[in-house]
Amino acid sequence: MSDEIRKLIQEAAEKARRETSHEPEPQFTGEVRYPVECQVGRGLEGAIVTDTKVGYVNGAKGWLVYRGFDCFDLAEHSTFEETTYLLFEGKLPNRSELQEFSDRLKSSREVPGAVYDHLRRLPITQTHPMSALRTAVSILGNLDPDADDVSVAKEKEVSIQLVAQFATLVAAIARLRRGESILAPRNDLGHAENLLYMMTGNEPDATLARVMDIMLILHADHGMNASTFSTMVVNSSLSDMYGSVVAGIASLKGPLHGGANEKVLYDLEEIGDVSNVQSWFTRARETKRKINGFGHRVYKAYDPRARILGPIAQMITDRNPETRRLYEVANQLEKLVSSELGTEKKIFPNVDFYSGLVYSAMGIETAMFTPIFALARVPGWTARTLEYLADNRIFRPRAVYTGPSSRDYVPIDQR
Amino acid sequence: MSDEIRKLIQEAAEKARRETSHEPEPQFTGEVRYPVECQVGRGLEGAIVTDTKVGYVNGAKGWLVYRGFDCFDLAEHSTFEETTYLLFEGKLPNRSELQEFSDRLKSSREVPGAVYDHLRRLPITQTHPMSALRTAVSILGNLDPDADDVSVAKEKEVSIQLVAQFATLVAAIARLRRGESILAPRNDLGHAENLLYMMTGNEPDATLARVMDIMLILHADHGMNASTFSTMVVNSSLSDMYGSVVAGIASLKGPLHGGANEKVLYDLEEIGDVSNVQSWFTRARETKRKINGFGHRVYKAYDPRARILGPIAQMITDRNPETRRLYEVANQLEKLVSSELGTEKKIFPNVDFYSGLVYSAMGIETAMFTPIFALARVPGWTARTLEYLADNRIFRPRAVYTGPSSRDYVPIDQR
Repeated sequence: MSDEIRKLIQEAAEKARRETSHEPEPQFTGEVRYPVECQVGRGLEGAIVTDTKVGYVNGAKGWLVYRGFDCFDLAEHSTFEETTYLLFEGKLPNRSELQEFSDRLKSSREVPGAVYDHLRRLPITQTHPMSALRTAVSILGNLDPDADDVSVAKEKEVSIQLVAQFATLVAAIARLRRGESILAPRNDLGHAENLLYMMTGNEPDATLARVMDIMLILHADHGMNASTFSTMVVNSSLSDMYGSVVAGIASLKGPLHGGANEKVLYDLEEIGDVSNVQSWFTRARETKRKINGFGHRVYKAYDPRARILGPIAQMITDRNPETRRLYEVANQLEKLVSSELGTEKKIFPNVDFYSGLVYSAMGIETAMFTPIFALARVPGWTARTLEYLADNRIFRPRAVYTGPSSRDYVPIDQR
Repeated sequence: MSDEIRKLIQEAAEKARRETSHEPEPQFTGEVRYPVECQVGRGLEGAIVTDTKVGYVNGAKGWLVYRGFDCFDLAEHSTFEETTYLLFEGKLPNRSELQEFSDRLKSSREVPGAVYDHLRRLPITQTHPMSALRTAVSILGNLDPDADDVSVAKEKEVSIQLVAQFATLVAAIARLRRGESILAPRNDLGHAENLLYMMTGNEPDATLARVMDIMLILHADHGMNASTFSTMVVNSSLSDMYGSVVAGIASLKGPLHGGANEKVLYDLEEIGDVSNVQSWFTRARETKRKINGFGHRVYKAYDPRARILGPIAQMITDRNPETRRLYEVANQLEKLVSSELGTEKKIFPNVDFYSGLVYSAMGIETAMFTPIFALARVPGWTARTLEYLADNRIFRPRAVYTGPSSRDYVPIDQR
């Protein structure tokens, strides 16, 4: 079965190489000199925030790269643990380095019982699970007596600890929401496997575990996105890593960012059947309704993550007639959007279009999609923040004041 | 006594007008067209994030302006409630508008008992009070069943509620840290007066209440600073206002931002006596030690807030021989720094240099300085975030990738 997944990824990579240039890009050899001249649009589009060796997105070609490695290769060969090591350390670990790092993650999985006590006291079915996660990570910071040590060494230690603990927290929130008891992490399981075990109570089979591992790898980093940027901005006042990551969670919660894959699933459920796709799409176009899961600020080519997740969604939804039906809807919707918008406007499915279907086929509740995204993105948030911290400068941009100038204070009775 | 304060402010304003240009600036009549050309330095120095009508800092001249009003005028005439209304609404309220707004703040002061239960369960003397505040505000969001309504109307409602509730939370944290019981807000008192009452258990006299009011006014907004920017960045994914403000708290906590006034007080205590200033300063210069409370990314003239707070610190420390001694130290240190660095390098005291002394003379514990800064800054954070939200675009800047290009995935045994 793992061979089947590998084959799907190889085919997706082949397709990507056929359709867009995969000529290696020239090695950067210069030096970034600040200040740099930029054209800055709203939302800081085009503004250069920093130089980085962590990774990048080539939106025109549809590449996602971590530390120089193509995400297709990492999805095919790597694990979340190894990819996390790569993002932090800048190189692939050898066997003993990987063992040591995986052991460190395992031994960090436990969360203080006090955090669970707090979570149990929240109105957990009422609050968004991302808001619960935000509180839980903030409390982890409260419980660390050395949280205010903001040396690079301590911040890195916290980062690795958070990579491990996020899975435990997300699973705890998922179970509390369903009124189930929290399960302790199992150290005989890998990260993705243990996550699925803690969420569902069942040890996943090899296919599910591998698919989750791939999901985590593909979400681990993605250039200078809003939640990564939020984490860096907060950290730049030399605030602690807990608070910085809390900001990342808060940012990712927004429907313009991590919340998008939930919306896709609600759309697919609304359409309901493949026979309704055409009429739904026509009406959506007429009413100028946003079609979720298509287009991306950065990608002007097919999102490489979606290339992998489309076939994986097809494979995994085979297990479940309900999600299979939604996959058929998605597939038909993609065909329609591509034929009507794809070629002219370069609008392609993004990662969110298929990721929800994959989670759904695994039996994961829609509201938990974004928390899983969050736990996968901790390496990207923190690796980039640690890199910036090593040559830190507080973020303090400008605004252009366009309001009234020099007004006189008028006593209240004369207003 | 209020006359004495008024006179101090008028004299400070006079001095500012004498020493720097206070010619009215031309009214902005153009239009900001994005993208704009900028020179972007590290920390996004020089990058234009947005246009705003909320306020600005003219660093070269030493002006701080809210909605067109000079901070000297607001410190002399306004109240925190009125200034908050001004920041939100863009105009000074008439009597009935101010009454209605103040009543709304008063009726929002109470905090759900569940938040206190959570705070009591934290290791409150171990965790930084800003970290406790971060958790408390996150939990306020968990308890609001409509937290995920991110319409401008709802976000504004939350903003006003948070302006009121921050004072209650900060006072509760201050009291729990000292092992004292939490005091409920008193609706017969103004915002600053009630804050001091909730913190100390004593109704402050008119001078203390007015001085606190002025402190809050002078900290309510300050251009595009790091914590305001953090709040905006998080909100730009259409995340909720609670999470956005949580990011503001986390940012302000950092020693490069809100944490600076604490450090000044620790320095002054280290110097201890006016007779030690010269030798401390000489050693600081020799060892290239940072002298906290001087210099500012934006101000290249005397910080107008420090102009007001210097004389106020002098006045208020008269009440307390201990803080008076520290004031004398500060005063001597300012003289030394000014004579040796001031004229050549344009290094002047900033707001943090005197604000800690003022809080200290009020009997406020050093660790609570930044939380008070936070509660004063909520109007600035939220008014600017609401303004951006009305024409929102998610923040997604760029980074320049300087890492290795196109690396091949090598099997683990060959590494």
